[in-house]
Amino acid sequence: MEELEPLLMIPGPTDLPDKVREALARPMINHRGAEFADVLGRCTEGLRQVFVTEQDVLTLTSSGTGGMEAAVANTLSPGDRVLALSAGNFGERMAKIARAFGAEVQQLDFEWGAAIDVGAVQRALRAADKPFRAVLWTHNETSTAITHDTPELCRLAQEHGALSVVDCISGMAGSEFHTDEWSVDVVIAGSQKGLMLPPGLAFISLSDRAWEATAGATMPRFYFDLVAARESLAKGQTPYTPAVSLFFALEAALEIVLAEGMEAVWRRHRLMGEAVRRGVRALGLELFGDVSHASAVVTAVRMPEGLDAKELLTRCAEREQVTIARGQGKLGGKIFRLAHLGMVNEARVLRMLEATARTLDRMGYSCNPPEALEAARTAWVEDDEVVS
Amino acid sequence: MEELEPLLMIPGPTDLPDKVREALARPMINHRGAEFADVLGRCTEGLRQVFVTEQDVLTLTSSGTGGMEAAVANTLSPGDRVLALSAGNFGERMAKIARAFGAEVQQLDFEWGAAIDVGAVQRALRAADKPFRAVLWTHNETSTAITHDTPELCRLAQEHGALSVVDCISGMAGSEFHTDEWSVDVVIAGSQKGLMLPPGLAFISLSDRAWEATAGATMPRFYFDLVAARESLAKGQTPYTPAVSLFFALEAALEIVLAEGMEAVWRRHRLMGEAVRRGVRALGLELFGDVSHASAVVTAVRMPEGLDAKELLTRCAEREQVTIARGQGKLGGKIFRLAHLGMVNEARVLRMLEATARTLDRMGYSCNPPEALEAARTAWVEDDEVVS
Repeated sequence: MEELEPLLMIPGPTDLPDKVREALARPMINHRGAEFADVLGRCTEGLRQVFVTEQDVLTLTSSGTGGMEAAVANTLSPGDRVLALSAGNFGERMAKIARAFGAEVQQLDFEWGAAIDVGAVQRALRAADKPFRAVLWTHNETSTAITHDTPELCRLAQEHGALSVVDCISGMAGSEFHTDEWSVDVVIAGSQKGLMLPPGLAFISLSDRAWEATAGATMPRFYFDLVAARESLAKGQTPYTPAVSLFFALEAALEIVLAEGMEAVWRRHRLMGEAVRRGVRALGLELFGDVSHASAVVTAVRMPEGLDAKELLTRCAEREQVTIARGQGKLGGKIFRLAHLGMVNEARVLRMLEATARTLDRMGYSCNPPEALEAARTAWVEDDEVVS
Repeated sequence: MEELEPLLMIPGPTDLPDKVREALARPMINHRGAEFADVLGRCTEGLRQVFVTEQDVLTLTSSGTGGMEAAVANTLSPGDRVLALSAGNFGERMAKIARAFGAEVQQLDFEWGAAIDVGAVQRALRAADKPFRAVLWTHNETSTAITHDTPELCRLAQEHGALSVVDCISGMAGSEFHTDEWSVDVVIAGSQKGLMLPPGLAFISLSDRAWEATAGATMPRFYFDLVAARESLAKGQTPYTPAVSLFFALEAALEIVLAEGMEAVWRRHRLMGEAVRRGVRALGLELFGDVSHASAVVTAVRMPEGLDAKELLTRCAEREQVTIARGQGKLGGKIFRLAHLGMVNEARVLRMLEATARTLDRMGYSCNPPEALEAARTAWVEDDEVVS
């Protein structure tokens, strides 16, 4: 039997393009020299286009969670009231960080699988006896495969004098996102998602309002001090030693992504999501959550009654060489997730659907894989007709 | 003219072995799967041997400075009195971090180029009206090329009931270090030094005493929460997404380092340092600082009167393709530094010395490069005689 190329179809890290892998293997250079300054400059410029912002985008050597901590610790003070919107695993994390650093957090919980209810947020903002300093949420909640209404939430936050702090770690360069147009005050992204890099870099951009807030913010920070990062960036450096190899890879990845163009990247993800959802439905499976807010980068599917999610993942990885994702937190065992993020195209989506269907079939769930593929194909066939 | 291979001879990052570069380019995997758990397990076991400790060595996705912040924030509380020993650029940094997180820092400054005066530390510890919770210092101060007396300082700290928190970022896997034998309570290392990896990982190990201290320590931490890191490690994971490619590289680097053996690695660095110092003296140049505490991984040299340090570095890099290091902080322009760290052997040391000598000669500093090489060679010739 021919050796199958493994496919990593989890919502990050994603498979890496060859050019990114080649860049990772480049010889090391002095991180305080002119060559690194050039790399950093080109990366920063490229990231501005990905974020669609005129602001600096700062690159931190950390995972996305480090970027979330930077967002909180640089703009808030202990005792500040913040409103944390949580509808999944990553929304919870933002609230935890704010609490760990001494914020007075009011957490508004929404059902996992639901979109954040904008009306409920408005009521909470209006009902506040003391104004909220910031509203925190996750744009693309990978744990439930839901994308929240960030433009509307930003509008509400601004109306009530609060900063909007948005975790877009899994969404950036996949899900449509307009930092400046939507007036997002702080946005965080990660490397191992739509940018198709290994994990290890976080990206963060602040609005003028958010930069002003850093001056009065007293939560402690040193490694994640964004003012220090901005000052160093102006000199073509980072305050502390950067993960140089990941910057080489970032430059290569940005070339790929920007050659495609942001509009095309967003459209590709949207289409792949539509294809996956059609395929899943054609298999008789039930999509999890509010599909009217379906994520462009990952799809959550309810496990069929009586079947074991862990077995599905293990068998799919071992026999089909396709790694799909488990449910997280309280959704563990109840759903599985199919990512269509970063290095994703029609062939990869079809192989993921076929591998999933075949494995379910072997586990005793009767379904018709070719039907699923045919249903998925209709997504891009229809789109071609619309575009042409 | 034949193309010269560039040589990176700064005290980190260092050049990368081919096997490390190949590992960096490996396809991505699921960071929550069994394959990553195996990589993490082997890395942790290897790091234990490098640190010479029975404790867990935790790997953080950050630069070494992130590891320093983790050390402080996990073991101390705001208002805790700490004694920070500073004799260079990196000693200053430890004190700054402790201050940023609310410690009451008494800083004991020593002349740059001097070793930390153990007697002065003892007097400060004795004179304290309120006991110090911790003593912080840098084992190998790269900015001045001095290695401090860590075993004796640890003994003093313990005698006075204080934790010893030691930045060994540039020293680990180069300079001899015995974590358990010296009773170091917290030690931090970095990837881009003796381990010959790209920057982006920090390593940290805590003694039983230090782990106990984490329970009462109230400085805020989330991304750098070491208890969370230890709990995840027990499950073959990291709390937040790790820089997977750097872990692949770490595994490869540890194989190289441990095949040589820690004693041999330390001896190689010590010898290369001796060779460089002999070469430098043979050129008529003056070594900077207290040579009786000369670092095993980097040598600081006074700039000859009337010559420009920046010009030396630029010309050496451009014409000789050998990158050496500038002076940092208040030593800028006054010294230059020759690293003998990580990927270092006789051939590389000789080329670095010759490149430096030739460049100085072209700048009008009259010297005899072959004499320097001959003097350097005597270091390992004598050592061979001692060993055989």
